[in-house]
Amino acid sequence: MGLFSKDIKTLDDLFVHQLQDVYYAEQQILSALPKMIEKATAPELKQGLQSHLTETEEHVRRVEQVFEMHGATKKAVKCPAINGIIEEANDVAGDVDDKQVLDAAIVASAQAVEHYEIARYGTLVAWAKQLGRADCAAVLEKTLKEEHAADKKLSGLAEGGVNRKAA
Amino acid sequence: MGLFSKDIKTLDDLFVHQLQDVYYAEQQILSALPKMIEKATAPELKQGLQSHLTETEEHVRRVEQVFEMHGATKKAVKCPAINGIIEEANDVAGDVDDKQVLDAAIVASAQAVEHYEIARYGTLVAWAKQLGRADCAAVLEKTLKEEHAADKKLSGLAEGGVNRKAA
Repeated sequence: MGLFSKDIKTLDDLFVHQLQDVYYAEQQILSALPKMIEKATAPELKQGLQSHLTETEEHVRRVEQVFEMHGATKKAVKCPAINGIIEEANDVAGDVDDKQVLDAAIVASAQAVEHYEIARYGTLVAWAKQLGRADCAAVLEKTLKEEHAADKKLSGLAEGGVNRKAA
Repeated sequence: MGLFSKDIKTLDDLFVHQLQDVYYAEQQILSALPKMIEKATAPELKQGLQSHLTETEEHVRRVEQVFEMHGATKKAVKCPAINGIIEEANDVAGDVDDKQVLDAAIVASAQAVEHYEIARYGTLVAWAKQLGRADCAAVLEKTLKEEHAADKKLSGLAEGGVNRKAA
């Protein structure tokens, strides 16, 4: 991202920039998830995060597919939002002194990650449609649906036992 | 936040920590919104952000109310997630060379902020209920509903004209 270089001139440029941002974010999530799985205690939480790790690998491939469909440069643009969210997750995890409270903190951190992705993919889908790229929108929409489902699943885990055990 | 100090021992400690985090986040948003309003061009976007600024002032007051109800120390804990999200918003805005494309970027940034808040307030409401603090949950739920509504309104603005004008 070239600060003050004003290199985003069209909505298509903005779409590509956002795609490069989410490509970076997915890679950071891919590297953060195994550490969250290791720290988690409840088997259903470990398993839920594990299956989201598998989904995330597919999300990375889908972003690459959209780069190819669009003809844009496949590039990850370092962006501060996901770094901040993951840094905060690590800070809080390092601060918790009880395995079951830690599970509740991990669910919360994972939901912050999910909501970041829901915002970004929601925007990407809307922009792709506006740009007449229904093909790109369809691929991105698959991921958006999975992020929504992952968030719902995490709420279910929290309300279905993780929070109770932590209390 | 005391890194490695392990001072979060219970779900109640985690709830208070999260409340201090969101108190900080709301203050950062309060200071970021006027700059977004200034940069926005579409009158309906300016107006939407302006009314969310008024809501945000009320959200800060509600967090203070929950601190009081709970008896916890009213304190803002510096946390990296909202800082990263706002930094990214400023970076992208500085990179866009067209007022109507900038409007689309501002909507996207505002939605990333909304989704961060939706995640955090959703968690706080669930934890408050688990802790038997239905009174705190009710106050936090008001804000959660307004964040959901603000996100929906932003989607409506994007799809109702902002994205089309940017394309």
